[in-house]
Amino acid sequence: MSAIVRLESAEDPRLDDYANLKDVTLRRSLEVEHGLFLAEGAKVIRRAVAAGYRVRSFLLSERWLDGLADVVTASGAPCYVLPPDRLEEVTGFAVHRGAIASMERRPLPSVAEVIAHARRVLVLEDIVDHTNVGAIFRGAAAFGVDAIVLAPRCADPLYRRSVKVSMGTVFSCPYARMDNWYDGLDALRAAGFTLVALTPADDAVDLDTLAMGDESGGAERLALLLGTEGDGLSARWQDQADVRARIPISAAVDSLNVAAAAAVACYVLTRDVPPPA
Amino acid sequence: MSAIVRLESAEDPRLDDYANLKDVTLRRSLEVEHGLFLAEGAKVIRRAVAAGYRVRSFLLSERWLDGLADVVTASGAPCYVLPPDRLEEVTGFAVHRGAIASMERRPLPSVAEVIAHARRVLVLEDIVDHTNVGAIFRGAAAFGVDAIVLAPRCADPLYRRSVKVSMGTVFSCPYARMDNWYDGLDALRAAGFTLVALTPADDAVDLDTLAMGDESGGAERLALLLGTEGDGLSARWQDQADVRARIPISAAVDSLNVAAAAAVACYVLTRDVPPPA
Repeated sequence: MSAIVRLESAEDPRLDDYANLKDVTLRRSLEVEHGLFLAEGAKVIRRAVAAGYRVRSFLLSERWLDGLADVVTASGAPCYVLPPDRLEEVTGFAVHRGAIASMERRPLPSVAEVIAHARRVLVLEDIVDHTNVGAIFRGAAAFGVDAIVLAPRCADPLYRRSVKVSMGTVFSCPYARMDNWYDGLDALRAAGFTLVALTPADDAVDLDTLAMGDESGGAERLALLLGTEGDGLSARWQDQADVRARIPISAAVDSLNVAAAAAVACYVLTRDVPPPA
Repeated sequence: MSAIVRLESAEDPRLDDYANLKDVTLRRSLEVEHGLFLAEGAKVIRRAVAAGYRVRSFLLSERWLDGLADVVTASGAPCYVLPPDRLEEVTGFAVHRGAIASMERRPLPSVAEVIAHARRVLVLEDIVDHTNVGAIFRGAAAFGVDAIVLAPRCADPLYRRSVKVSMGTVFSCPYARMDNWYDGLDALRAAGFTLVALTPADDAVDLDTLAMGDESGGAERLALLLGTEGDGLSARWQDQADVRARIPISAAVDSLNVAAAAAVACYVLTRDVPPPA
Protein backbone atom coordinates (compact mmCIF):
# COMPACT_ATOMS: atom_id res chain seq x y z
CA MET A 1 0.00 0.00 0.00
CA SER A 2 1.42 3.35 -0.84
CA ALA A 3 1.10 6.63 0.99
CA ILE A 4 -0.67 9.57 -0.62
CA VAL A 5 1.04 12.65 0.79
CA ARG A 6 -0.55 16.03 0.06
CA LEU A 7 2.06 18.76 0.18
CA GLU A 8 1.57 22.52 0.07
CA SER A 9 5.14 23.63 -0.37
CA ALA A 10 7.51 23.10 -3.25
CA GLU A 11 10.41 23.28 -0.78
CA ASP A 12 10.07 19.78 0.59
CA PRO A 13 13.19 17.58 0.64
CA ARG A 14 11.05 14.60 -0.35
CA LEU A 15 10.74 16.30 -3.74
CA ASP A 16 14.48 16.44 -4.39
CA ASP A 17 14.25 13.88 -7.19
CA TYR A 18 12.19 16.38 -9.18
CA ALA A 19 14.20 19.56 -8.75
CA ASN A 20 15.60 21.73 -11.53
CA LEU A 21 14.37 19.62 -14.39
CA LYS A 22 15.40 22.22 -16.94
CA ASP A 23 19.04 22.14 -15.89
CA VAL A 24 20.39 19.30 -18.05
CA THR A 25 23.91 19.29 -16.60
CA LEU A 26 22.75 19.24 -13.01
CA ARG A 27 20.12 16.62 -13.74
CA ARG A 28 22.63 14.35 -15.45
CA SER A 29 24.88 14.16 -12.40
CA LEU A 30 21.96 13.96 -9.97
CA GLU A 31 20.32 11.12 -11.87
CA VAL A 32 23.51 9.13 -12.27
CA GLU A 33 24.52 9.56 -8.62
CA HIS A 34 21.13 8.52 -7.34
CA GLY A 35 20.48 5.91 -9.99
CA LEU A 36 17.15 7.36 -10.98
CA PHE A 37 15.29 8.57 -14.03
CA LEU A 38 11.98 10.34 -14.52
CA ALA A 39 8.91 9.22 -16.44
CA GLU A 40 6.36 11.87 -17.40
CA GLY A 41 2.68 11.41 -18.16
CA ALA A 42 0.39 8.58 -17.11
CA LYS A 43 0.93 6.50 -20.26
CA VAL A 44 4.73 6.61 -20.06
CA ILE A 45 4.68 5.93 -16.29
CA ARG A 46 2.52 2.86 -16.93
CA ARG A 47 4.93 1.63 -19.57
CA ALA A 48 7.92 2.02 -17.26
CA VAL A 49 6.14 0.06 -14.54
CA ALA A 50 5.02 -2.60 -17.04
CA ALA A 51 8.66 -2.96 -18.12
CA GLY A 52 9.53 -3.77 -14.51
CA TYR A 53 11.13 -0.53 -13.33
CA ARG A 54 10.67 0.15 -9.62
CA VAL A 55 9.05 3.46 -8.63
CA ARG A 56 10.87 5.62 -6.06
CA SER A 57 8.00 8.09 -5.82
CA PHE A 58 5.21 9.76 -7.76
CA LEU A 59 4.55 13.49 -8.04
CA LEU A 60 1.08 14.37 -9.28
CA SER A 61 -1.44 17.12 -9.36
CA GLU A 62 -4.72 16.11 -7.72
CA ARG A 63 -6.69 15.50 -10.90
CA TRP A 64 -4.26 12.85 -12.14
CA LEU A 65 -4.48 10.80 -8.97
CA ASP A 66 -7.55 8.78 -9.93
CA GLY A 67 -6.20 7.83 -13.33
CA LEU A 68 -3.04 6.38 -11.81
CA ALA A 69 -4.55 5.00 -8.59
CA ASP A 70 -3.98 1.35 -9.54
CA VAL A 71 -0.33 1.91 -10.42
CA VAL A 72 0.28 4.00 -7.31
CA THR A 73 -1.30 1.41 -5.04
CA ALA A 74 0.51 -1.52 -6.62
CA SER A 75 3.88 0.20 -6.44
CA GLY A 76 3.97 0.82 -2.70
CA ALA A 77 5.93 4.00 -3.40
CA PRO A 78 5.03 7.35 -1.82
CA CYS A 79 2.83 9.56 -3.96
CA TYR A 80 3.23 13.31 -3.46
CA VAL A 81 0.33 15.47 -4.52
CA LEU A 82 0.82 19.18 -5.14
CA PRO A 83 -1.34 22.00 -6.51
CA PRO A 84 -0.49 22.45 -10.23
CA ASP A 85 1.33 25.78 -9.78
CA ARG A 86 3.45 24.32 -6.96
CA LEU A 87 4.26 21.38 -9.21
CA GLU A 88 5.66 23.74 -11.78
CA GLU A 89 7.61 25.51 -9.06
CA VAL A 90 9.37 22.27 -8.12
CA THR A 91 10.26 21.16 -11.60
CA GLY A 92 10.76 24.52 -13.27
CA PHE A 93 8.40 23.83 -16.14
CA ALA A 94 4.82 22.81 -16.90
CA VAL A 95 4.72 19.08 -16.18
CA HIS A 96 3.32 17.10 -19.06
CA ARG A 97 -0.19 16.06 -18.10
CA GLY A 98 0.44 16.68 -14.44
CA ALA A 99 2.07 13.37 -13.54
CA ILE A 100 5.68 12.43 -13.09
CA ALA A 101 7.42 9.53 -11.41
CA SER A 102 10.95 8.96 -10.21
CA MET A 103 12.08 5.45 -11.09
CA GLU A 104 15.08 3.31 -10.24
CA ARG A 105 17.55 2.63 -12.99
CA ARG A 106 18.68 -0.96 -13.56
CA PRO A 107 22.10 -2.18 -14.66
CA LEU A 108 22.19 -2.22 -18.46
CA PRO A 109 22.69 -5.57 -20.17
CA SER A 110 25.96 -6.10 -22.04
CA VAL A 111 26.30 -5.55 -25.78
CA ALA A 112 26.74 -9.32 -26.18
CA GLU A 113 23.43 -9.94 -24.43
CA VAL A 114 21.32 -7.49 -26.45
CA ILE A 115 22.69 -8.61 -29.82
CA ALA A 116 22.65 -12.35 -29.05
CA HIS A 117 19.40 -13.10 -30.89
CA ALA A 118 19.01 -9.86 -32.82
CA ARG A 119 18.79 -9.65 -36.58
CA ARG A 120 18.39 -5.90 -37.00
CA VAL A 121 20.38 -3.60 -34.74
CA LEU A 122 20.93 0.17 -34.65
CA VAL A 123 24.25 1.53 -33.44
CA LEU A 124 24.21 5.18 -32.34
CA GLU A 125 27.54 6.99 -32.42
CA ASP A 126 27.45 10.13 -30.25
CA ILE A 127 23.89 11.28 -30.93
CA VAL A 128 23.91 14.11 -28.40
CA ASP A 129 20.36 15.42 -28.59
CA HIS A 130 17.93 13.72 -26.20
CA THR A 131 15.00 14.40 -28.51
CA ASN A 132 16.76 12.63 -31.36
CA VAL A 133 17.65 9.64 -29.17
CA GLY A 134 14.02 9.32 -28.06
CA ALA A 135 12.71 9.69 -31.60
CA ILE A 136 15.17 7.08 -32.92
CA PHE A 137 14.00 4.58 -30.28
CA ARG A 138 10.36 5.22 -31.18
CA GLY A 139 11.00 4.61 -34.89
CA ALA A 140 13.19 1.58 -34.20
CA ALA A 141 10.54 0.00 -31.96
CA ALA A 142 7.82 0.73 -34.52
CA PHE A 143 9.71 -1.13 -37.24
CA GLY A 144 10.71 -4.04 -35.05
CA VAL A 145 14.42 -3.33 -34.65
CA ASP A 146 15.66 -5.93 -32.15
CA ALA A 147 18.25 -3.93 -30.20
CA ILE A 148 20.12 -0.64 -30.02
CA VAL A 149 23.81 -0.28 -29.15
CA LEU A 150 25.09 3.10 -27.95
CA ALA A 151 28.58 4.52 -28.31
CA PRO A 152 30.08 5.70 -25.00
CA ARG A 153 29.18 9.36 -25.64
CA CYS A 154 25.67 8.88 -27.01
CA ALA A 155 23.00 10.71 -24.99
CA ASP A 156 21.10 8.84 -22.27
CA PRO A 157 17.87 7.14 -23.43
CA LEU A 158 16.50 7.41 -19.87
CA TYR A 159 16.91 11.17 -19.71
CA ARG A 160 13.44 12.71 -19.22
CA ARG A 161 13.21 14.25 -22.68
CA SER A 162 14.33 11.03 -24.43
CA VAL A 163 11.84 8.96 -22.46
CA LYS A 164 9.00 11.33 -23.32
CA VAL A 165 9.76 11.63 -27.03
CA SER A 166 10.25 7.86 -27.28
CA MET A 167 6.71 7.37 -25.89
CA GLY A 168 8.24 4.87 -23.49
CA THR A 169 9.80 2.67 -26.17
CA VAL A 170 13.14 3.12 -24.37
CA PHE A 171 11.67 0.70 -21.82
CA SER A 172 10.82 -2.02 -24.31
CA CYS A 173 13.56 -1.86 -26.93
CA PRO A 174 16.65 -3.61 -25.50
CA TYR A 175 19.78 -1.48 -25.51
CA ALA A 176 23.34 -1.58 -24.25
CA ARG A 177 26.30 0.78 -24.19
CA MET A 178 29.72 -0.18 -25.54
CA ASP A 179 32.68 0.47 -23.22
CA ASN A 180 34.94 1.77 -25.85
CA TRP A 181 34.30 3.57 -29.07
CA TYR A 182 37.47 2.61 -30.89
CA ASP A 183 36.89 -1.14 -30.99
CA GLY A 184 33.20 -0.91 -30.31
CA LEU A 185 32.10 -2.47 -33.60
CA ASP A 186 34.22 -5.61 -33.19
CA ALA A 187 31.58 -7.43 -31.14
CA LEU A 188 29.00 -6.89 -33.87
CA ARG A 189 31.32 -8.02 -36.61
CA ALA A 190 32.34 -11.09 -34.62
CA ALA A 191 28.67 -11.95 -34.22
CA GLY A 192 28.25 -11.97 -37.99
CA PHE A 193 26.52 -8.64 -38.47
CA THR A 194 26.92 -6.80 -41.75
CA LEU A 195 27.81 -3.24 -40.72
CA VAL A 196 25.98 -0.59 -42.73
CA ALA A 197 27.09 3.04 -42.30
CA LEU A 198 24.30 5.52 -43.05
CA THR A 199 25.65 8.65 -44.74
CA PRO A 200 24.37 11.33 -47.07
CA ALA A 201 27.55 10.95 -49.22
CA ASP A 202 26.98 10.76 -52.99
CA ASP A 203 29.27 7.78 -53.48
CA ALA A 204 27.37 5.57 -51.05
CA VAL A 205 25.08 2.76 -52.16
CA ASP A 206 21.37 3.50 -52.44
CA LEU A 207 19.62 2.06 -49.38
CA ASP A 208 17.00 0.44 -51.60
CA THR A 209 19.60 -1.57 -53.44
CA LEU A 210 20.94 -2.71 -50.12
CA ALA A 211 17.56 -3.82 -48.86
CA MET A 212 17.17 -6.01 -51.93
CA GLY A 213 20.29 -7.84 -50.85
CA ASP A 214 22.33 -6.81 -53.89
CA GLU A 215 25.19 -5.38 -51.87
CA SER A 216 24.81 -6.93 -48.47
CA GLY A 217 24.05 -10.38 -49.79
CA GLY A 218 20.63 -10.23 -48.10
CA ALA A 219 22.30 -10.05 -44.72
CA GLU A 220 20.84 -12.32 -42.08
CA ARG A 221 22.14 -9.94 -39.44
CA LEU A 222 22.48 -6.26 -40.14
CA ALA A 223 23.66 -3.37 -37.95
CA LEU A 224 22.89 0.15 -39.11
CA LEU A 225 25.39 2.75 -37.88
CA LEU A 226 24.05 6.28 -37.30
CA GLY A 227 26.37 9.24 -36.69
CA THR A 228 26.21 12.44 -34.70
CA GLU A 229 23.83 15.24 -35.70
CA GLY A 230 26.40 17.69 -37.04
CA ASP A 231 29.18 15.71 -38.64
CA GLY A 232 27.67 12.28 -39.17
CA LEU A 233 29.64 9.09 -38.64
CA SER A 234 33.32 9.24 -37.74
CA ALA A 235 35.82 8.31 -40.44
CA ARG A 236 36.86 5.30 -38.37
CA TRP A 237 33.36 3.84 -38.23
CA GLN A 238 32.77 4.55 -41.89
CA ASP A 239 36.00 2.71 -42.69
CA GLN A 240 35.03 -0.19 -40.50
CA ALA A 241 31.62 -0.60 -42.10
CA ASP A 242 31.05 -3.29 -44.71
CA VAL A 243 29.02 -0.90 -46.80
CA ARG A 244 28.16 2.81 -46.79
CA ALA A 245 24.52 3.42 -47.66
CA ARG A 246 22.52 6.56 -48.38
CA ILE A 247 18.89 7.50 -48.49
CA PRO A 248 18.40 9.12 -51.89
CA ILE A 249 17.32 12.73 -51.31
CA SER A 250 17.06 15.91 -53.35
CA ALA A 251 20.36 17.62 -54.11
CA ALA A 252 18.76 20.87 -52.96
CA VAL A 253 18.51 19.65 -49.35
CA ASP A 254 21.57 19.03 -47.15
CA SER A 255 20.29 16.11 -45.19
CA LEU A 256 17.42 14.62 -43.27
CA ASN A 257 17.18 14.98 -39.52
CA VAL A 258 18.89 11.91 -38.01
CA ALA A 259 15.63 10.62 -36.48
CA ALA A 260 13.78 10.92 -39.79
CA ALA A 261 16.68 9.22 -41.58
CA ALA A 262 16.66 6.46 -38.97
CA ALA A 263 12.90 5.91 -39.40
CA VAL A 264 13.22 5.64 -43.18
CA ALA A 265 16.21 3.31 -42.90
CA CYS A 266 14.48 1.12 -40.30
CA TYR A 267 11.43 0.92 -42.54
CA VAL A 268 13.54 -0.19 -45.50
CA LEU A 269 15.85 -2.57 -43.65
CA THR A 270 13.23 -4.39 -41.61
CA ARG A 271 10.78 -4.94 -44.47
CA ASP A 272 12.47 -8.08 -45.71
CA VAL A 273 13.09 -9.67 -42.33
CA PRO A 274 10.90 -12.75 -41.95
CA PRO A 275 9.15 -13.20 -38.60
CA PRO A 276 11.04 -15.32 -36.07
CA ALA A 277 10.62 -19.05 -36.60
CA MET B 1 24.49 49.92 -47.87
CA SER B 2 23.19 48.95 -44.49
CA ALA B 3 23.80 50.51 -41.11
CA ILE B 4 25.64 48.57 -38.41
CA VAL B 5 24.22 49.86 -35.13
CA ARG B 6 25.93 48.76 -31.93
CA LEU B 7 23.51 48.88 -29.03
CA GLU B 8 24.22 48.46 -25.34
CA SER B 9 20.68 48.17 -24.02
CA ALA B 10 18.11 45.48 -24.60
CA GLU B 11 15.41 48.11 -24.06
CA ASP B 12 15.63 49.72 -27.46
CA PRO B 13 12.38 50.13 -29.45
CA ARG B 14 14.27 49.19 -32.61
CA LEU B 15 14.45 45.69 -31.18
CA ASP B 16 10.69 45.28 -30.85
CA ASP B 17 10.57 42.67 -33.62
CA TYR B 18 12.64 40.37 -31.40
CA ALA B 19 10.86 40.68 -28.06
CA ASN B 20 9.41 37.83 -26.01
CA LEU B 21 10.32 35.07 -28.40
CA LYS B 22 9.26 32.40 -25.93
CA ASP B 23 5.71 33.70 -25.71
CA VAL B 24 4.07 31.84 -28.58
CA THR B 25 0.66 33.48 -28.26
CA LEU B 26 2.05 37.00 -28.14
CA ARG B 27 4.46 36.30 -30.98
CA ARG B 28 1.70 34.94 -33.17
CA SER B 29 -0.33 38.13 -33.00
CA LEU B 30 2.72 40.39 -33.22
CA GLU B 31 4.07 38.59 -36.28
CA VAL B 32 0.75 38.54 -38.08
CA GLU B 33 0.01 42.20 -37.34
CA HIS B 34 3.39 43.36 -38.48
CA GLY B 35 3.72 40.87 -41.32
CA LEU B 36 7.05 39.56 -40.16
CA PHE B 37 8.79 36.33 -39.30
CA LEU B 38 12.15 35.48 -37.78
CA ALA B 39 15.02 33.47 -39.25
CA GLU B 40 17.64 32.15 -36.85
CA GLY B 41 21.23 31.19 -37.59
CA ALA B 42 23.42 32.32 -40.50
CA LYS B 43 22.55 29.39 -42.75
CA VAL B 44 18.80 29.80 -42.38
CA ILE B 45 19.04 33.59 -42.78
CA ARG B 46 20.96 33.07 -46.03
CA ARG B 47 18.31 30.68 -47.28
CA ALA B 48 15.50 33.14 -46.54
CA VAL B 49 17.35 35.89 -48.41
CA ALA B 50 18.14 33.54 -51.30
CA ALA B 51 14.42 32.71 -51.50
CA GLY B 52 13.73 36.41 -51.99
CA TYR B 53 12.42 37.43 -48.57
CA ARG B 54 13.18 41.05 -47.67
CA VAL B 55 15.04 41.68 -44.41
CA ARG B 56 13.54 44.19 -41.95
CA SER B 57 16.56 44.07 -39.67
CA PHE B 58 19.29 41.83 -38.32
CA LEU B 59 20.16 41.23 -34.68
CA LEU B 60 23.59 39.72 -34.12
CA SER B 61 26.27 39.28 -31.54
CA GLU B 62 29.59 40.78 -32.65
CA ARG B 63 31.28 37.53 -33.60
CA TRP B 64 28.63 36.63 -36.15
CA LEU B 65 28.94 39.92 -38.00
CA ASP B 66 31.82 38.92 -40.28
CA GLY B 67 30.19 35.69 -41.38
CA LEU B 68 27.06 37.51 -42.51
CA ALA B 69 28.69 40.74 -43.74
CA ASP B 70 27.86 40.12 -47.41
CA VAL B 71 24.19 39.41 -46.69
CA VAL B 72 23.91 42.38 -44.34
CA THR B 73 25.48 44.75 -46.85
CA ALA B 74 23.40 43.51 -49.78
CA SER B 75 20.16 43.77 -47.82
CA GLY B 76 20.34 47.46 -46.98
CA ALA B 77 18.54 46.64 -43.71
CA PRO B 78 19.74 47.91 -40.34
CA CYS B 79 21.93 45.48 -38.42
CA TYR B 80 21.78 45.71 -34.63
CA VAL B 81 24.73 44.33 -32.73
CA LEU B 82 24.42 43.45 -29.06
CA PRO B 83 26.63 41.74 -26.48
CA PRO B 84 25.56 38.05 -26.23
CA ASP B 85 23.99 38.39 -22.77
CA ARG B 86 21.98 41.42 -23.90
CA LEU B 87 20.84 39.46 -26.93
CA GLU B 88 19.41 36.82 -24.65
CA GLU B 89 17.75 39.54 -22.58
CA VAL B 90 15.88 40.82 -25.64
CA THR B 91 14.68 37.48 -26.94
CA GLY B 92 14.25 35.61 -23.67
CA PHE B 93 16.38 32.64 -24.72
CA ALA B 94 19.83 31.73 -26.00
CA VAL B 95 19.76 32.72 -29.67
CA HIS B 96 20.85 29.90 -31.92
CA ARG B 97 24.35 30.73 -33.14
CA GLY B 98 24.02 34.39 -32.21
CA ALA B 99 22.27 35.60 -35.36
CA ILE B 100 18.64 36.35 -36.02
CA ALA B 101 16.86 38.36 -38.69
CA SER B 102 13.38 39.81 -38.93
CA MET B 103 11.99 39.26 -42.42
CA GLU B 104 8.91 40.47 -44.27
CA ARG B 105 6.22 37.94 -45.00
CA ARG B 106 4.86 37.73 -48.53
CA PRO B 107 1.31 36.94 -49.57
CA LEU B 108 0.96 33.16 -49.88
CA PRO B 109 0.15 31.74 -53.31
CA SER B 110 -3.26 30.14 -53.76
CA VAL B 111 -3.83 26.41 -53.46
CA ALA B 112 -4.53 26.33 -57.21
CA GLU B 113 -1.14 27.89 -57.92
CA VAL B 114 0.96 25.57 -55.78
CA ILE B 115 -0.70 22.39 -57.04
CA ALA B 116 -0.83 23.44 -60.71
CA HIS B 117 2.23 21.47 -61.81
CA ALA B 118 2.69 19.27 -58.75
CA ARG B 119 2.68 15.48 -58.82
CA ARG B 120 3.28 14.78 -55.16
CA VAL B 121 1.58 16.96 -52.56
CA LEU B 122 1.28 16.78 -48.78
CA VAL B 123 -1.87 18.09 -47.12
CA LEU B 124 -1.51 18.90 -43.41
CA GLU B 125 -4.71 18.87 -41.38
CA ASP B 126 -4.28 20.79 -38.13
CA ILE B 127 -0.73 19.80 -37.26
CA VAL B 128 -0.40 22.09 -34.25
CA ASP B 129 3.20 21.60 -33.20
CA HIS B 130 5.67 23.95 -34.89
CA THR B 131 8.48 21.41 -34.56
CA ASN B 132 6.43 18.82 -36.43
CA VAL B 133 5.50 21.28 -39.18
CA GLY B 134 9.16 22.20 -39.67
CA ALA B 135 10.26 18.56 -39.64
CA ILE B 136 7.57 17.60 -42.16
CA PHE B 137 8.76 20.35 -44.53
CA ARG B 138 12.36 19.18 -44.21
CA GLY B 139 11.43 15.59 -45.06
CA ALA B 140 9.11 16.65 -47.87
CA ALA B 141 11.80 18.83 -49.44
CA ALA B 142 14.38 16.05 -49.11
CA PHE B 143 12.20 13.61 -51.02
CA GLY B 144 11.17 16.09 -53.68
CA VAL B 145 7.54 16.64 -52.70
CA ASP B 146 6.32 19.42 -55.01
CA ALA B 147 4.00 21.36 -52.71
CA ILE B 148 2.34 21.40 -49.29
CA VAL B 149 -1.24 22.47 -48.64
CA LEU B 150 -2.22 23.48 -45.11
CA ALA B 151 -5.64 23.23 -43.48
CA PRO B 152 -6.82 26.53 -41.97
CA ARG B 153 -5.75 25.55 -38.43
CA CYS B 154 -2.39 23.99 -39.24
CA ALA B 155 0.53 25.71 -37.44
CA ASP B 156 2.48 28.44 -39.23
CA PRO B 157 5.52 27.21 -41.22
CA LEU B 158 7.13 30.65 -40.78
CA TYR B 159 6.97 30.56 -37.01
CA ARG B 160 10.54 30.71 -35.65
CA ARG B 161 10.63 27.14 -34.42
CA SER B 162 9.20 25.70 -37.66
CA VAL B 163 11.70 27.67 -39.74
CA LYS B 164 14.60 26.45 -37.63
CA VAL B 165 13.62 22.78 -37.56
CA SER B 166 12.89 22.86 -41.30
CA MET B 167 16.48 24.04 -41.91
CA GLY B 168 14.97 26.74 -44.12
CA THR B 169 13.10 24.32 -46.41
CA VAL B 170 9.90 26.30 -45.60
CA PHE B 171 11.40 28.93 -47.92
CA SER B 172 11.91 26.61 -50.87
CA CYS B 173 9.02 24.15 -50.71
CA PRO B 174 5.93 25.91 -52.14
CA TYR B 175 2.94 25.93 -49.83
CA ALA B 176 -0.52 27.42 -49.59
CA ARG B 177 -3.30 27.48 -47.05
CA MET B 178 -6.87 26.41 -47.86
CA ASP B 179 -9.62 28.88 -46.85
CA ASN B 180 -11.97 26.30 -45.60
CA TRP B 181 -11.44 22.91 -44.09
CA TYR B 182 -14.79 21.38 -44.97
CA ASP B 183 -14.44 21.57 -48.74
CA GLY B 184 -10.69 21.97 -48.71
CA LEU B 185 -9.93 18.75 -50.57
CA ASP B 186 -12.22 19.55 -53.53
CA ALA B 187 -9.56 21.55 -55.37
CA LEU B 188 -7.14 18.63 -55.20
CA ARG B 189 -9.71 16.13 -56.38
CA ALA B 190 -10.79 18.43 -59.22
CA ALA B 191 -7.15 18.66 -60.29
CA GLY B 192 -7.00 14.88 -60.63
CA PHE B 193 -5.10 14.02 -57.47
CA THR B 194 -5.60 10.64 -55.85
CA LEU B 195 -6.20 11.45 -52.17
CA VAL B 196 -4.35 9.13 -49.80
CA ALA B 197 -5.20 9.34 -46.09
CA LEU B 198 -2.32 8.22 -43.86
CA THR B 199 -3.59 6.37 -40.80
CA PRO B 200 -2.30 3.75 -38.36
CA ALA B 201 -5.63 1.86 -38.69
CA ASP B 202 -5.34 -1.89 -39.21
CA ASP B 203 -7.85 -2.01 -42.06
CA ALA B 204 -5.92 0.46 -44.20
CA VAL B 205 -3.88 -0.58 -47.25
CA ASP B 206 -0.14 -1.15 -46.78
CA LEU B 207 1.71 1.90 -48.10
CA ASP B 208 4.06 -0.34 -50.04
CA THR B 209 1.22 -1.86 -51.99
CA LEU B 210 0.02 1.61 -52.80
CA ALA B 211 3.40 2.71 -54.05
CA MET B 212 3.40 -0.21 -56.46
CA GLY B 213 0.23 1.18 -57.98
CA ASP B 214 -1.96 -1.77 -57.02
CA GLU B 215 -4.56 0.35 -55.29
CA SER B 216 -4.03 3.84 -56.60
CA GLY B 217 -3.57 2.75 -60.19
CA GLY B 218 -0.05 4.18 -60.15
CA ALA B 219 -1.42 7.65 -59.62
CA GLU B 220 0.09 10.35 -61.76
CA ARG B 221 -0.88 12.89 -59.11
CA LEU B 222 -1.04 11.93 -55.49
CA ALA B 223 -1.89 13.95 -52.38
CA LEU B 224 -0.98 12.48 -49.00
CA LEU B 225 -3.23 13.65 -46.16
CA LEU B 226 -1.64 13.86 -42.70
CA GLY B 227 -3.72 14.40 -39.57
CA THR B 228 -3.21 16.12 -36.25
CA GLU B 229 -0.75 14.73 -33.68
CA GLY B 230 -3.24 13.40 -31.18
CA ASP B 231 -6.24 12.13 -33.08
CA GLY B 232 -4.99 11.75 -36.62
CA LEU B 233 -7.10 12.66 -39.63
CA SER B 234 -10.70 13.78 -39.16
CA ALA B 235 -13.43 11.33 -40.11
CA ARG B 236 -14.51 13.69 -42.90
CA TRP B 237 -11.10 13.73 -44.57
CA GLN B 238 -10.72 9.99 -44.18
CA ASP B 239 -14.11 9.55 -45.85
CA GLN B 240 -13.18 11.90 -48.65
CA ALA B 241 -9.91 10.11 -49.40
CA ASP B 242 -9.71 7.67 -52.31
CA VAL B 243 -7.66 5.29 -50.22
CA ARG B 244 -6.59 4.94 -46.60
CA ALA B 245 -2.98 3.81 -46.28
CA ARG B 246 -0.85 2.72 -43.36
CA ILE B 247 2.83 2.30 -42.66
CA PRO B 248 3.18 -1.24 -41.34
CA ILE B 249 4.53 -1.01 -37.79
CA SER B 250 4.86 -3.31 -34.81
CA ALA B 251 1.63 -4.01 -32.95
CA ALA B 252 3.50 -3.21 -29.72
CA VAL B 253 3.93 0.44 -30.69
CA ASP B 254 0.99 2.90 -30.93
CA SER B 255 2.21 4.99 -33.77
CA LEU B 256 5.10 6.84 -35.31
CA ASN B 257 5.61 10.53 -34.68
CA VAL B 258 3.82 12.38 -37.50
CA ALA B 259 7.07 13.82 -38.89
CA ALA B 260 8.73 10.38 -38.97
CA ALA B 261 5.61 8.91 -40.60
CA ALA B 262 5.63 11.73 -43.15
CA ALA B 263 9.30 11.11 -43.97
CA VAL B 264 8.72 7.38 -44.50
CA ALA B 265 5.60 8.04 -46.60
CA CYS B 266 7.37 10.69 -48.70
CA TYR B 267 10.25 8.27 -49.27
CA VAL B 268 7.88 5.55 -50.44
CA LEU B 269 5.56 7.72 -52.53
CA THR B 270 8.20 9.73 -54.36
CA ARG B 271 10.42 6.77 -55.26
CA ASP B 272 8.44 5.88 -58.37
CA VAL B 273 7.95 9.41 -59.66
CA PRO B 274 10.00 9.86 -62.82
CA PRO B 275 11.98 13.10 -63.10
CA PRO B 276 10.14 15.92 -64.91
CA ALA B 277 10.27 15.64 -68.72
